[in-house]
Amino acid sequence: MTPNHPHPTAISLKFDPNGLIPAIVQDAATKDVLTLAYMNAESLQKTIQTGETWFYSRSRQELWHKGGTSGNTQKVTEIRYDCDADALLVLVQPAGPACHTGAQSCFYRTLPENP
Amino acid sequence: MTPNHPHPTAISLKFDPNGLIPAIVQDAATKDVLTLAYMNAESLQKTIQTGETWFYSRSRQELWHKGGTSGNTQKVTEIRYDCDADALLVLVQPAGPACHTGAQSCFYRTLPENP
Repeated sequence: MTPNHPHPTAISLKFDPNGLIPAIVQDAATKDVLTLAYMNAESLQKTIQTGETWFYSRSRQELWHKGGTSGNTQKVTEIRYDCDADALLVLVQPAGPACHTGAQSCFYRTLPENP
Repeated sequence: MTPNHPHPTAISLKFDPNGLIPAIVQDAATKDVLTLAYMNAESLQKTIQTGETWFYSRSRQELWHKGGTSGNTQKVTEIRYDCDADALLVLVQPAGPACHTGAQSCFYRTLPENP
């Protein structure tokens, strides 16, 4: 707990060795699962402070405000965490599609039954 | 693609450096998110073959058949994958609680708004 690594909550969430925790994003109204993204302590803190989702991009290695460019922000209504405190479930009201492809959910494809 | 590393599908799913892919488990009827667990290629193959969820335990470093001991199995109705092909969404009909605590969902706690 240093100023460079702000601890976002009094709860001991378990971040992985890279300082990340997976965050499932679910539409609060339809209950559709929209995205699996990752947060670090800072993006979780910004999510709580702003009431909109902020994630950590593993490929770009930087914080990103979901919808900051596209306008497809996600208003957070609730953040849950699991029994092991190593995963988050973020309930949101999305302003637009969650997926960069334009799909409402990133999970728009089904695995074949007999691959 | 060797006999020791069966490739479960024709789709190029992206497993992480540890050979794992996160799998969100969602109740097909209520749409509640139940668990975030991890699969390796073998557990995904067993899931597809048996129609029940199999995961890879990172702590025990072994395959586990969800409900194999407790009886709280999960019948798989659909497996989806995301735009990046690095996360799964598994829709299930659960025979009992998903969580080892006895809770219906592992996400039974809410993060305080003002931690």
